[in-house]
Amino acid sequence: MGGENSFSSLAVGPVLRHRGGMFDPVAKLKEYVRCASVSADPKFAPGLKQAQDCIGGLLREAGLVVEIVQTQHHPIVLATRAGDPSWPHVIIYGHYDVQPADPLELWQSPAFEPEVRGDRIYGRGTADNKGPLLVHVAAVTRLLAANPQLPLRLTFLIEGEEEIGSPSFLPFLEQHRDKLKADFVLLSDTGIPRADQVVVTVGLRGLFTFEIELTGAKMDLHSGLHGGVILNPLQALAELCATLHTPDGRVNIPGFYDEVVPVQDWERVELRRLGTSEKQYQEFLGVTQFHCPPGCNPFEAVRFQPTLEFNGMGGGYQGAGSKTVIPSKAMVKISCRMVANQDPAVVKERVFRALRERCPKGVTLKIVDGHHGAPYLVVPPGRPNTPAHQPPVLARAFRATEQAVTEVFGNPPLFLREGGSVPIIGDIKRVLGLDSVMLGLFLPEDNLHAPNESFHLGVMEKGIRTVEKILLAVAKG
Amino acid sequence: MGGENSFSSLAVGPVLRHRGGMFDPVAKLKEYVRCASVSADPKFAPGLKQAQDCIGGLLREAGLVVEIVQTQHHPIVLATRAGDPSWPHVIIYGHYDVQPADPLELWQSPAFEPEVRGDRIYGRGTADNKGPLLVHVAAVTRLLAANPQLPLRLTFLIEGEEEIGSPSFLPFLEQHRDKLKADFVLLSDTGIPRADQVVVTVGLRGLFTFEIELTGAKMDLHSGLHGGVILNPLQALAELCATLHTPDGRVNIPGFYDEVVPVQDWERVELRRLGTSEKQYQEFLGVTQFHCPPGCNPFEAVRFQPTLEFNGMGGGYQGAGSKTVIPSKAMVKISCRMVANQDPAVVKERVFRALRERCPKGVTLKIVDGHHGAPYLVVPPGRPNTPAHQPPVLARAFRATEQAVTEVFGNPPLFLREGGSVPIIGDIKRVLGLDSVMLGLFLPEDNLHAPNESFHLGVMEKGIRTVEKILLAVAKG
Repeated sequence: MGGENSFSSLAVGPVLRHRGGMFDPVAKLKEYVRCASVSADPKFAPGLKQAQDCIGGLLREAGLVVEIVQTQHHPIVLATRAGDPSWPHVIIYGHYDVQPADPLELWQSPAFEPEVRGDRIYGRGTADNKGPLLVHVAAVTRLLAANPQLPLRLTFLIEGEEEIGSPSFLPFLEQHRDKLKADFVLLSDTGIPRADQVVVTVGLRGLFTFEIELTGAKMDLHSGLHGGVILNPLQALAELCATLHTPDGRVNIPGFYDEVVPVQDWERVELRRLGTSEKQYQEFLGVTQFHCPPGCNPFEAVRFQPTLEFNGMGGGYQGAGSKTVIPSKAMVKISCRMVANQDPAVVKERVFRALRERCPKGVTLKIVDGHHGAPYLVVPPGRPNTPAHQPPVLARAFRATEQAVTEVFGNPPLFLREGGSVPIIGDIKRVLGLDSVMLGLFLPEDNLHAPNESFHLGVMEKGIRTVEKILLAVAKG
Repeated sequence: MGGENSFSSLAVGPVLRHRGGMFDPVAKLKEYVRCASVSADPKFAPGLKQAQDCIGGLLREAGLVVEIVQTQHHPIVLATRAGDPSWPHVIIYGHYDVQPADPLELWQSPAFEPEVRGDRIYGRGTADNKGPLLVHVAAVTRLLAANPQLPLRLTFLIEGEEEIGSPSFLPFLEQHRDKLKADFVLLSDTGIPRADQVVVTVGLRGLFTFEIELTGAKMDLHSGLHGGVILNPLQALAELCATLHTPDGRVNIPGFYDEVVPVQDWERVELRRLGTSEKQYQEFLGVTQFHCPPGCNPFEAVRFQPTLEFNGMGGGYQGAGSKTVIPSKAMVKISCRMVANQDPAVVKERVFRALRERCPKGVTLKIVDGHHGAPYLVVPPGRPNTPAHQPPVLARAFRATEQAVTEVFGNPPLFLREGGSVPIIGDIKRVLGLDSVMLGLFLPEDNLHAPNESFHLGVMEKGIRTVEKILLAVAKG
């Protein structure tokens, strides 16, 4: 625990002086964030290519064999360190694509020109997922530099379609099943509440996304010449959307909660150890009150309850001033989060049925289906509901993680379900039969998916040391 | 009625060969529409200036004295033909500003590059109000060329802020009250149902506009990490907006209809002569059904009923693909149309009160007030409710209009209230005591305020001849 290096300045600390010392993670992260790799928007194709080259290059320098696997949209970067079949095999997952950066005007420094301010680095993708992925790349670089004969097989699996729902990932898993026989998956694409309290995520919400478009008249109309004659599609949209929740904060769709199972006692106990107060959370969000389903505090709601959220809504004139128009079309983008034991495909059908039944007459409803991902749950060793035949390397990884986090961060990790979704975790479980150890690294104030996204440099450095220790322990057996 | 010139080709017809024949209205209109004069958007300042110069230049060529009167935003073009105080004095009103042209991608030819296709000219402002205003400019040009000694005083009053609610017009009227002592106002900024059926508008709806902004969390949030914890402002917006109408098509605000007076019998009779069927109107709009308040057909609803319409709504991610965000803010632009005897200021307070009372807890409501205009009503001569002391020049103008329209268009005009708003008409009545003769010239298919706005060239030429006749009759007494 001595010689703590917090990265609060840009000085190269003592931990960088060993054989992997040429790897300066902050400089590499800056370079990586400069690759503007927005997967949702075709005009970012060059940035996506740059991001592949950047991360592939780093892994090649670490000594891995890098392969670019073409997919429908953006290739998967696959990097392997082969070895004796008796060695444990760890798959490390990450993604090189990022969310769109708009609204651009709210960024203090440009989204794709990373900037260090205080103990943070700012830029789109710093926290989701470029910084956390670089933690693993740095750890492997250092570990292999210090231990060239390490008895560990490694496969980095880095996709470019995570933020658009990973459409190519499942086919990829199915096609490369043989190459991907491993013991477990290690990744950092989940959060932690404070810089000194790591959470190992043992459950993720699934999700499905879709878009509704309502059409009224065949063209935009003057609201004076035609107002009061037809149903305005914006009005229809508001009325349709307003049916989707009850006043007490639940989703108002028949059967929406049917498969939700009760929460385990140990989960509630672990959650109470989180140590964030509702008041702190409220201040962080800047809201006057919470709006959770009955019987849930906000920490439980976000982990154990499904949701239906409006992510974007639009129609008519949104520019400066006023325009007295009745728009022809109105749209809303919706995502639903699913908890363990819910099947997104089944619940989605219930939502679509309700929408079709409730759509006001006088407008035409079009539903554009999006992507979906299953929820996920793994039970760590030593819990009342741990499976009897949990694979030994997985159990060892969980125990190594607990020990490494305790040593490096000064506190044992919490094993918690989380509210976010990493849909491919469920796919990996289903196709490869592998569970995942999800070492959280980003903080609430990192502003994921929002302007001024950032990553904490102290967490970054501690993360590198933690991952080094985990991999070393897994390799040593 | 012989020698009909329909402008279905660009050939200069016989009516253009008299002394005002140098004035080619189509060429002038093209030039005028090219001045991109969007008053709502500061970046169109050069186009607004060009439009002032263009219309001012034409009036100067016609022999009027042109003055540019500075205002808070965009100047008023004031052009006068003085004369003996015993001559009748007609004020001709128009506006040189236009609506924003977006969505630009829906225009078949660019909005500010006017194009003649068939018997129409396409471009933003061709119908609202550049084409109809040019009808008056052309008529005056020809009339004065043919009758240099015409005993008629004229004042053109052309503003540049109509599409942003004419904020400078009322102060202008109050300051220039003396200059504006006249007999009546003549204008063409209203519609007609068919190219052979003119409507003289005798009533206009008033309006008020405002914008609502709801704020939830202080920043955009990841819908996985925080979804289900707070009230999404888009959800709050939908729920708030959904309270504003009843299922039967009325506005659901206490007192919204309190001052609405019953419709006169002669108005219903006149309306039945309109000759458009509900089926035709429905096909024109491209809707499967109407959505009118109880007891109204669509033709009555648009004229005799107030409305609350959503003109624009937005929040969150509206780009390609999906973005799982809970936005910090959501907004809606609303306009309410008012009918005769309603006071927009009074009704607006009722709407704002309801919004404040109904806004869901957990979001912050901000109401941004917009512009407003009073509704207007004038009763033409010879009706049961015509005022006993109607000014004789006004009565003569109405009769001249009836005769000229009947001669040029082949059918007598209808005297109808309309659904649109020209708020300054009420202001003129209140400040100057003047009523207005509103000669309709644009057609339903002209797509006002929408992509592919156009103006019918046949109506344009007939309009010029009609206005010539009206002004001649008024001058002759």
